[in-house]
Parts: sequence; structure tokens; C-alpha cells
Amino acid sequence: MITGIKVIGFDADDTLWVNEPYYREVEEQFVQLLTTYEVSGNIAGALFDTEIANLRLYGYGIKAFILSLVECAVQLTDGGVTSRDISRIIGLGKSMLERPIELLDDVKRVLKVLAPKYRLIVATKGDLLDQERKMHKSSISDYFHHIEVMSDKKELQYVQLLKHLDIAPEAFLMIGNSLKSDIIPPLELGAWGIHVPFHTTWAHEEVDKEPESNRFFKVEKLHQVLNLISH
Amino acid sequence: MITGIKVIGFDADDTLWVNEPYYREVEEQFVQLLTTYEVSGNIAGALFDTEIANLRLYGYGIKAFILSLVECAVQLTDGGVTSRDISRIIGLGKSMLERPIELLDDVKRVLKVLAPKYRLIVATKGDLLDQERKMHKSSISDYFHHIEVMSDKKELQYVQLLKHLDIAPEAFLMIGNSLKSDIIPPLELGAWGIHVPFHTTWAHEEVDKEPESNRFFKVEKLHQVLNLISH
Repeated sequence: MITGIKVIGFDADDTLWVNEPYYREVEEQFVQLLTTYEVSGNIAGALFDTEIANLRLYGYGIKAFILSLVECAVQLTDGGVTSRDISRIIGLGKSMLERPIELLDDVKRVLKVLAPKYRLIVATKGDLLDQERKMHKSSISDYFHHIEVMSDKKELQYVQLLKHLDIAPEAFLMIGNSLKSDIIPPLELGAWGIHVPFHTTWAHEEVDKEPESNRFFKVEKLHQVLNLISH
Repeated sequence: MITGIKVIGFDADDTLWVNEPYYREVEEQFVQLLTTYEVSGNIAGALFDTEIANLRLYGYGIKAFILSLVECAVQLTDGGVTSRDISRIIGLGKSMLERPIELLDDVKRVLKVLAPKYRLIVATKGDLLDQERKMHKSSISDYFHHIEVMSDKKELQYVQLLKHLDIAPEAFLMIGNSLKSDIIPPLELGAWGIHVPFHTTWAHEEVDKEPESNRFFKVEKLHQVLNLISH
């Protein structure tokens, strides 16, 4: 059982709503588009490499993804990609920004149960405006005190988050689908973590092994967090 | 004289450090690049229109700017722009993200005087990661409680900011170079504003007339705010 917490942070993408599958869809369309050129080899792998190379400069989110798609298309076609196809790629990215929100199962019920007793926040990476728009579309924004869009989710950013929230690590619980971004850094700082896996995970977020900690929990379905948190 | 404030928000770009002139430089290089194509008319004007059309989807900041540059290049050349030049444009954008920071005059001195008595924050638009990186490079981050990167700077976002800070509007002073984004919305909510104009302003930030309010002040140089705030 989790005790002594005051603030619960929820990851957003693939914890509250569907996200990664949209990236995979656009990636497939990108691969399709580039196969009309004489591009050989692993297109998705090259895209991943471009994204990782750009991470330091661009950070996370859809705008960074679009810029990497364009850059990768120019590179893989050795400058041969037409600017019509560049426009198509930008259009794919824009359509991601306009998608409706698909809340995951049990999200509303869980928030409703926890909101009266805890301060709930959203702690997420990605484009600031995009995350705010998703929150706005989601019809769950009233359950949250505020949304923290973080440039990364490493220990440094969680230290800043806790400072900003003005609470001790032991009073903070993070719930999310990424062990690497949502769970391990808060645990390292002395906070609590509940891992709720999602079926699709970006390769960059994968880790080899689960953390060992008595402040670490894992559930299959989000509603099961209610068995771990008094309410 | 300004009384009863607890938190002072500083705008970042063109208030703490140079920003807009870098955009204008890249814009000039973009215009140069496109004049090698048979593009007639007002290139800078077309870029502005593309940026404004994309604002709703992309928000503010350098990544949005790069995406608009690419889109505008394809459009103005009627699909004729080479993908080599697309790469060049992306390179221009990336170089903006790597520029060193140029602090404006008096910034350090003013922060040093105010920090012991007030909670200082940065309240800025733009790319989250880029603003954090600039703050990190600036050597002034220790003066600030935290940095708030906002998706926009309208009344709505300032309402959220004040809620988040947990203070009444009368306890908040905003200092910045944009009447439209830094001064008018906080004044409307009942907060205080000090306008410190900068020599270069993006057309989108311009307003016709100064606000009329006894909570509004204007100074020529940043250090003059010290004459308005007890310390």
C-alpha cells in the first residue's frame, strides 16, 4: 500500500490517452511514401536515428517529429524527394496535431475517485501547446490542479518538479506507462511509482529490467491503482 | 510606486536576452535564398502569413518557425525549391537553437537586487526546451524560483499562471517588452505591468496604443524598474 502521498502525477501520452499508435501510423505512411523513391534499407530505423540525433536540439513532441521526418526524407532520397512530398509529410504531421482525443479505459473513474483527496497533476513531455490542447479536448482537465510539460523526464526535471510543487519526494506518486521516463527517475529520488504498461512503446522509452524498490508497483489496468492508494 | 507585490514575472525573449534580431537575421537569409528562384513579391510578408496561419496548430518558438519557413519555401516556389535548400533552411533553424545567449543590459544587477525580497519567475512563450536551454546558458537561473513556459500569453494563460502561483492578481507584477503579451493581459486581470520596450518587435506583437491604468508603468531601461519597486 502507498502511504503519505499528497500529490499524484499522471503521465499523459499512453497513460491517459492514446498517443504512440498515431506516431506509428504516420511512420508507416512515411515509409510507404519513401518506397516510391529508390530507397533501400530500414527506413523506420533511419527515422529513429534522425529523431535521436535531433533530440538534444528539438526535444520531444510532434513538431520535432515532423522536422525529423522532413530531414530524414531529404537524406534517404539523397536530395531527390520532391517538395510536393515534403508538403505531404508536413501535412501528415499537422493531421497528428488535429486528431481527436481517445481517453484510455477507466481514466475518468480513477480521476474522479482520487481528485477529492489528492492534488492531481499531469506531468508530460511533448509540445506544450499540443499537450494543453489534448488536455482541453479530453474533458478531464477539471480533475487536475495543473499540467506540467517537461522538456525531459530525467531525475533533474523531477527534482525541479518537486521543488516547484514544494513537496518532499515521499509525498509524490507518479503513474505512467514508461518505466524509463515515469517511474525510474521518481523512484531514484525517493518518490513512489506505479507502472501501467501500454501495448505500444517507442523504442527510445524501453528499458531492460524493472526497478527493485518497495515504492514500485505495477498494474495491468489503470483502475487497479485504486487498490494501492487509499481514497 | 508599486506596492503589495509578492511575485515578479519576467518575460524572457528581448526582456532578459536578445531574441527577435536572430529571427530577423534568419528571415533575411531566407529571403536571399528564395530570390535565387523566380519568386516575386513580398517574401517576408508571405512568411509572416504562413506563421500566423500555423500559430493555432504549432504555437510559438523556433521549431514552429522552421516548419513555417519550409512550408513557405515550397509554396512560394510552387514546389520548385530543391530539397538541398530545404536542408539549408532546416540548418538555419538549427543554428538558431545553438546560438549563445546575449543578456541585455542591467539584467543581472536588477535580479540581484530584487531576488532577496520577491519570488522571481520567468514567464515566456516559445519552445520549452529552447527556453530552458537559454535559461541554463544565461547564468541567471539561480535568481528565479522557476520558469513558466506558456503556450500563449493571453488572459486565459495568466489566469492559469496566477492560480498555479496561488496568488491574487494584485500581488503579481509582470515586466516585459511586449505590451500585447506581457503587459495588457495581466493589467486586465488586476495585476501590475512594467513595459520595457526593445528596439525590434515582431509585427504580431505590436499594438496601437498604450494601456491606461494606474498599475501600468513604462521605463526606457531595465534598471529603472528599481525606482518603481521597493527593495
